[in-house]
Amino acid sequence: MFDNKERTHLDKIGEFGLIDLIHKAVEINEASTIKGIGDDAAVIQHEGKQTLISTDLLLEGIHFDLRYVPLKHLGYKAVQVNLSDIYAMNGIASQITFSIGLSSKFPLEAIEEIYEGAILACKKYGVDLVGGDTSASKQGLVISVTSIGYALAEEVTYRDGAGEGDLIGVSGDLGGAYVGLQLLEREKQIFLENPQVQPDLEGKDYIIERQLKPEARKDIVYLFRELKIKPTAMIDVSDGLASEILHICRQSNKGCRIYEEKIPIDPMTYETARSFNLDPTVCALSGGEDYELLFTIKQADYEKIKGDLDISIIGHITEESAGCSLVSKSGNMHPITAQGWNAF
Amino acid sequence: MFDNKERTHLDKIGEFGLIDLIHKAVEINEASTIKGIGDDAAVIQHEGKQTLISTDLLLEGIHFDLRYVPLKHLGYKAVQVNLSDIYAMNGIASQITFSIGLSSKFPLEAIEEIYEGAILACKKYGVDLVGGDTSASKQGLVISVTSIGYALAEEVTYRDGAGEGDLIGVSGDLGGAYVGLQLLEREKQIFLENPQVQPDLEGKDYIIERQLKPEARKDIVYLFRELKIKPTAMIDVSDGLASEILHICRQSNKGCRIYEEKIPIDPMTYETARSFNLDPTVCALSGGEDYELLFTIKQADYEKIKGDLDISIIGHITEESAGCSLVSKSGNMHPITAQGWNAF
Repeated sequence: MFDNKERTHLDKIGEFGLIDLIHKAVEINEASTIKGIGDDAAVIQHEGKQTLISTDLLLEGIHFDLRYVPLKHLGYKAVQVNLSDIYAMNGIASQITFSIGLSSKFPLEAIEEIYEGAILACKKYGVDLVGGDTSASKQGLVISVTSIGYALAEEVTYRDGAGEGDLIGVSGDLGGAYVGLQLLEREKQIFLENPQVQPDLEGKDYIIERQLKPEARKDIVYLFRELKIKPTAMIDVSDGLASEILHICRQSNKGCRIYEEKIPIDPMTYETARSFNLDPTVCALSGGEDYELLFTIKQADYEKIKGDLDISIIGHITEESAGCSLVSKSGNMHPITAQGWNAF
Repeated sequence: MFDNKERTHLDKIGEFGLIDLIHKAVEINEASTIKGIGDDAAVIQHEGKQTLISTDLLLEGIHFDLRYVPLKHLGYKAVQVNLSDIYAMNGIASQITFSIGLSSKFPLEAIEEIYEGAILACKKYGVDLVGGDTSASKQGLVISVTSIGYALAEEVTYRDGAGEGDLIGVSGDLGGAYVGLQLLEREKQIFLENPQVQPDLEGKDYIIERQLKPEARKDIVYLFRELKIKPTAMIDVSDGLASEILHICRQSNKGCRIYEEKIPIDPMTYETARSFNLDPTVCALSGGEDYELLFTIKQADYEKIKGDLDISIIGHITEESAGCSLVSKSGNMHPITAQGWNAF
C-alpha cells in the first residue's frame, strides 16, 4: 500500500514521512469531506443534518493480543467497532480519524498492515479517513478512532426512547465473538507451551471471524429506512446482550422480558461453547464484541420486519417496576445483571 | 468534583460507575450540543456551517512525565492542545470527546483530578465535553482528545493559502514551553539524585506555566473577526516555529524569509535559555509546545494589526524558488530545517 517495499525502520522516515505515506494511501470519496489529512483539522459539511461523533480507545494487552490478532484485522476491527456506534444512533457514518501510538519495534510494514485494514474498512463502509495523530509509544500499540456520521434530527435513535410493549429485536447472532476468543486463547496457550504445534482452528472460521473481523451493521440502518421503521431505542452489542438491554431499560425508565429460547445463537457458537463447558446463553448475554444492533420497535412495526431472517425478536419492554428478566427455556425468571470491563 | 470523598479503588466502582461520575460532573452549555455523554454517539447541530475535527493522542513517557506534571494540568493541557488545532483553522471549538486509558495504580481521585483539569479548560473555552471512552491500560496513562468546531466556509483558514508578499505573523511569544521543560527536567534529575532537595523553580512561573498549562489562542480568532482580517494561511505552533512555517510554505508552494530579531521571545525565556547554554532562537525555532498561532496576512491588513502588542510580524512569504530562510541578527541567511518527533 505504501510506496515502499523493504523492511523500513521508523526512525528512517520520521513522523512527517509517515504522515505523507498515510496521506497518499488514503482516498477521499465522500462529498461531505471538504478537507481530510494535511491541516490542523478536517473540515466537513453536513448541510441541514445532525452530526454524530463517537470515539474508542484500543490498547494492546486489553483490547487485543498481538500474538494472535493479525495487524490488518486489527486496523479493520478498530474502524468497525467505532462505526458501529454511529449505526447504533440510526445514522450513516461518513468520516473517521485514526490515531496510532507505536513503539520502535514496529517496522513501517507493520503500520502499513494496520492502515491497510483500516482503509479496507473505510472503503467497504463508504467513509473517508480524514485525520488522526501519529505518536511514538513506550507502552505498546495504542489505537484511537473517532467516527463522524450524520442523520436527520427525526432519524436519530437514542437509548432512552423504549416504550412499554415495544418489541426487542437484535440483528444477526450473538456470543460468537466471545467463543471465538476462547478458541484463540486456547491455541495461544498450546503454542506458548509447545511452539511446534500448529493452531487447530479448522472449521471454526465463522466464530474466529466474529472475533477478529466483526462487521458493523450499516445494512440494518438501511433496512429500517427501506421498511420505514424508526426504532424507539437502539444500541450496539459491544459488552454483551445483558449489559446493552440494561442500558436501554435504565435510560428509558422501563423493564424488559427477554426469552432465552429466542436469543439467536449460531450452531457453531453453540457447539463450541459446549465443548468449553460454557453455557451458550451466558456467552450471548455477557460475552460481548458481537457488534450487532439491539433495538426496540413499536408492535405496529412487527409485520414489516417479521419476515427478515437476519432479525430476531427476543422479548419486549415492560413497565419499570417489573424489572429486567430473562425467561429461561424451562420457564423460570432470572434477573438480568451486567457489568462493564473489570480489567482493573 | 466527583461526589465521592475517600480514596477509592477503581475496581470498586467499575466502568459504568466511573462513566456515571464523569457524566454527572460534566455540564452542557453549547446550544449546538443536542446530546452529550450517555449514548452510542454524541449529536451535534451546526446549521449551515462547516464542522472541524481534530484529534490528539497523549501517551505517558512520550508527551508527559507524571513525575512533574500535576494531573489537573495534564487534563487541562490535553484539551488546550487539541482546541488549538480548531483555532488554527480560524474556527470556534464547540465540543470535545475525552478518552482515557488507565492502570489500576490510579485511584478514582487521580482520574478526578485529570477530569477537573479537562472540565476547567472546557469551561474557560466554552466547549462541551460530549463523549469519550474509558479503558483499563496495562501501559501507563493514555489520553485521546478529539475536538469539534465550526466556521462558515469562507472563514476556514487552511495551510495552503499563503501568497507571495504576505506578511508572516505570530501571536504571543515562543520558546518558553521548551525552556520551561528544561527547568522541570533539571529539577527532576536533582530530585532523583537527592530526594531531600526541594525543587528550585522560584521566579520561573511564567515559563513553567508555558510548559504545564499552555493557553490555546481563541482570542486571536476573535481578534481577526473584530479587525475583519482573514489570514491567508494559519497553523498552531506545536512543533516549533521552523517546522510550522515549513508546513505553510510547502503546502502553499512558497518560500519565506524570517528575521531572527523579530521573533518574539520573553526575557525570562531568553535568560533561562542562556543559563542552560541554549540559543534562545533555536528554542523558539525547534522547541515547540507554545501553542501560539502562526499565520500569514495580506500586506493590506498590516495597518489593522500593527498596533496589537500580542502580535509580531516576523517575516514575509517569497516565491518558492527563494527557499525558506532565517535572516540572523548579524544579517546572515540560514536555511530553515525541521523534523517531527524523533522519539523512535
